[in-house]
Amino acid sequence: MGPDLDPREWPTPRVVVDRARLAANIRRTQEIAGRWGVRLRPHAKTHKSVAVARMQVSAGAVGVTAAKPGEAQVFVEGGIPSVLLAFPVVEAFRIDELLDAARASSAEVRLIAERREGVLALSQAARRHGLELPVMLKVDVGLHRVGVSADGPDAPAVARAIAAAPGLRLSGLVSHAGHAYAAAGPDAIADVAEAERRTMLRVQARLRAEGLVVDEVSVGSTPTVLAQRDFSGITEIRPGNAVFLDGTAVRLGIATEGDVALWVHATVVGATDRHAIVDAGSKVLSSDLGPHGTGAAGYGLARPFSGGAPMVVERLSEEHGWLRLDGPPPAVGSRVAILPNHACPVANLALGFVLAGGDRAPERLPVDARGMVH
Amino acid sequence: MGPDLDPREWPTPRVVVDRARLAANIRRTQEIAGRWGVRLRPHAKTHKSVAVARMQVSAGAVGVTAAKPGEAQVFVEGGIPSVLLAFPVVEAFRIDELLDAARASSAEVRLIAERREGVLALSQAARRHGLELPVMLKVDVGLHRVGVSADGPDAPAVARAIAAAPGLRLSGLVSHAGHAYAAAGPDAIADVAEAERRTMLRVQARLRAEGLVVDEVSVGSTPTVLAQRDFSGITEIRPGNAVFLDGTAVRLGIATEGDVALWVHATVVGATDRHAIVDAGSKVLSSDLGPHGTGAAGYGLARPFSGGAPMVVERLSEEHGWLRLDGPPPAVGSRVAILPNHACPVANLALGFVLAGGDRAPERLPVDARGMVH
Repeated sequence: MGPDLDPREWPTPRVVVDRARLAANIRRTQEIAGRWGVRLRPHAKTHKSVAVARMQVSAGAVGVTAAKPGEAQVFVEGGIPSVLLAFPVVEAFRIDELLDAARASSAEVRLIAERREGVLALSQAARRHGLELPVMLKVDVGLHRVGVSADGPDAPAVARAIAAAPGLRLSGLVSHAGHAYAAAGPDAIADVAEAERRTMLRVQARLRAEGLVVDEVSVGSTPTVLAQRDFSGITEIRPGNAVFLDGTAVRLGIATEGDVALWVHATVVGATDRHAIVDAGSKVLSSDLGPHGTGAAGYGLARPFSGGAPMVVERLSEEHGWLRLDGPPPAVGSRVAILPNHACPVANLALGFVLAGGDRAPERLPVDARGMVH
Repeated sequence: MGPDLDPREWPTPRVVVDRARLAANIRRTQEIAGRWGVRLRPHAKTHKSVAVARMQVSAGAVGVTAAKPGEAQVFVEGGIPSVLLAFPVVEAFRIDELLDAARASSAEVRLIAERREGVLALSQAARRHGLELPVMLKVDVGLHRVGVSADGPDAPAVARAIAAAPGLRLSGLVSHAGHAYAAAGPDAIADVAEAERRTMLRVQARLRAEGLVVDEVSVGSTPTVLAQRDFSGITEIRPGNAVFLDGTAVRLGIATEGDVALWVHATVVGATDRHAIVDAGSKVLSSDLGPHGTGAAGYGLARPFSGGAPMVVERLSEEHGWLRLDGPPPAVGSRVAILPNHACPVANLALGFVLAGGDRAPERLPVDARGMVH
């Protein structure tokens, strides 16, 4: 829950990240990577914080993953040595500023492609900037959002196009098994992860049989990385949410509430006969039920700092949260810590979060890449 | 939809506000206020923009409404002459900075209270700052979130407490019929508005019978303000969303799609056999189905700039939108304008929006009060 803090100095609603849990979560994924000899490239969309990215790199990560060119640029400019832009760029001008920033800070930028328009755009950008850009072929392993299908004609066709395009180098394969969020529990998630692994190795073998160089196999999603039991053949993992975790990770059985680093602290400002009302609404918690539209039963779980039973966040207005009462309401002015459904949009909504806990004073970390949606 | 713009200069996803629609929407609520001789105090949580607030004041608004102390402070510091903080403050220190800012810019700050803890907190703050603060009694007219019930003992008790508290002046009554968002259409919404009006006048009569001075009756929500047919006895209206409107207003039948000023422009970056994929996800559209948890069938409606049938935004990832295909997919690289379910969280997610249309060049307006959740 993070420590309760003086609201005069740290007003509610506030996004609090517990130092010890954050460090433990960074260690946990790094240990998985170390155990299997794979590289760790955490997805920075979860925290959008250069300071947290630096902690991840200090712990052993090779760099970060970013969701959009503007987001990638923030981390490149923040000194992160290697950034994978895991979004299908289909127009060359989209990455002009990012490539300029990468050159200025001698950072590596990796890209993905899944169709001819993307390959052409990346090649055009590479030539314009006089670069050889590493490009990963994006494979659809079941989310059905972006990526070539493993067994159709596009996989070799697009891979060949990347390998042949001026300014591009085919680096390997990349996937995101986001459909794991819809799985029932750790065993079902491990099955998704294993199916992903086998799919990726099958595509790698197909492409190698054509004489293509496909060295890297990069997979990533927090559930699959935490539930997978065999990373053989994988060279890189890209969990994002694992750095904070949240109610979704707890619901899926891949973490306990005690593992969650990010909480939203709120103050009780009133009560009706059915709800306690707090000062945290959808503008701090988001309306997310879970990643990729997966669903929780409420908008979070509120634990009173004074002890007592947790309350479900049953409903949200923009600046009010409605906690369902099963007993007497908590005192007006008292505080609760809310376990959010999905930590990633919470960090994106905050101007900054409070890093707290342990012996050191709380400190404010800005959300550097907040709002960098293009 | 707003005009399509050069993506090199205005990259997608971008939040575009159409100048003519914005002006028409500001006029529409001002005309309602003028026709009935009531004051207009728009809720600024929708746009969070000092520039838009100034347009509203220039058109005749007496000031704005704000949802949180930090948000109110942005508008006070932006030169808005009067701000109602429509949130139940229950701790005096929460408004210290706001009251300092109000003094510095000679702005009026109005507050609300619904319980003894709130009255005590406001009185303590007023005395500390040597001010006489106007306070409105918040009445619950059916949303059951915050407010005294109309017919119970709290209404006169809290009103008397406000009137008697050092540093406070009882100004009147305030309500928000947010439950109107769950109504079936304009007639049902008009019934909610009329029930609200009668409830407010009943409370006013009750309090006047006790000798209390209750001059003002302030009501507000976009659906009720646009659907109400009789404002007799009302002195102030506070619509927020009406400045932009959105898919919810269209769904409720209180606006047409052509009235909507705020749209999210996105680029098609790919397609599966069932979805076109665009570069706008929950980090720009939000996951809101509608205000106060009310529900739409999808996350927005996407209209191709090239013409053709609209597509439902069926699913959102953080940075991807999934448009349901009923026919051939739109071309990769083409653009769509998305009608969002709820304009208020969209503006809050944007770093700024593009004011565009008409003869003048597009200009970027910052979302000044973005992230001001406390």
